[in-house]
Amino acid sequence: MLEKVAWMNLLFDFYGQLLTNRQKVFMDLYYAQDFSLGEIAEEYQVTRQAVYDTLKRAEQTLSHYEDKLGLVAKYNSELDKLSAVAALLDESGAVDRDSKVRQARKIIDGILNM
Amino acid sequence: MLEKVAWMNLLFDFYGQLLTNRQKVFMDLYYAQDFSLGEIAEEYQVTRQAVYDTLKRAEQTLSHYEDKLGLVAKYNSELDKLSAVAALLDESGAVDRDSKVRQARKIIDGILNM
Repeated sequence: MLEKVAWMNLLFDFYGQLLTNRQKVFMDLYYAQDFSLGEIAEEYQVTRQAVYDTLKRAEQTLSHYEDKLGLVAKYNSELDKLSAVAALLDESGAVDRDSKVRQARKIIDGILNM
Repeated sequence: MLEKVAWMNLLFDFYGQLLTNRQKVFMDLYYAQDFSLGEIAEEYQVTRQAVYDTLKRAEQTLSHYEDKLGLVAKYNSELDKLSAVAALLDESGAVDRDSKVRQARKIIDGILNM
């Protein structure tokens, strides 16, 4: 489940702007802010089933775009490579010896933590 | 014009799978393979205007997705940062002194040339 939450949050980061406003709000509450279906239903005066359906539709839309474009997968693969770069620089010890390498390492951290 | 070509090729790399088959083919011929409108028209037995309209529509679709999602802009900004990292490592000379830094530098090259 946690993995699904992380994945949905990633998909939402990439493709969320293609959702309807209501889908965006419910996805944010459910996946990013950890509201329950019941809590969202109460807050928006709709049935629990309506919340579920809206989320389901939104998830399908996000997954559809990722199936077509694969941009999250591509991004993840680049982050993996970049983590390997960071690890190599750390292991080399060059970060401690050289201010330019240190600066490079900081930029990498900036990208990894975006 | 060249800048537009590079930009369209980038947009096509990211969002091309959202186009129709005919749009994909014409975009590829026109922007990636440098065919003229007339050449595409002849090849596909349609008018030059029909080719133009298909390309226009495709460009609008690609631009629409980039306006919404901004993933190409985000990607470009990360590549800029990564180029800065590569330059810093090169300037530091650590690449010549340290095999781990050299390995890291190679991975970065791999990402930059993808």
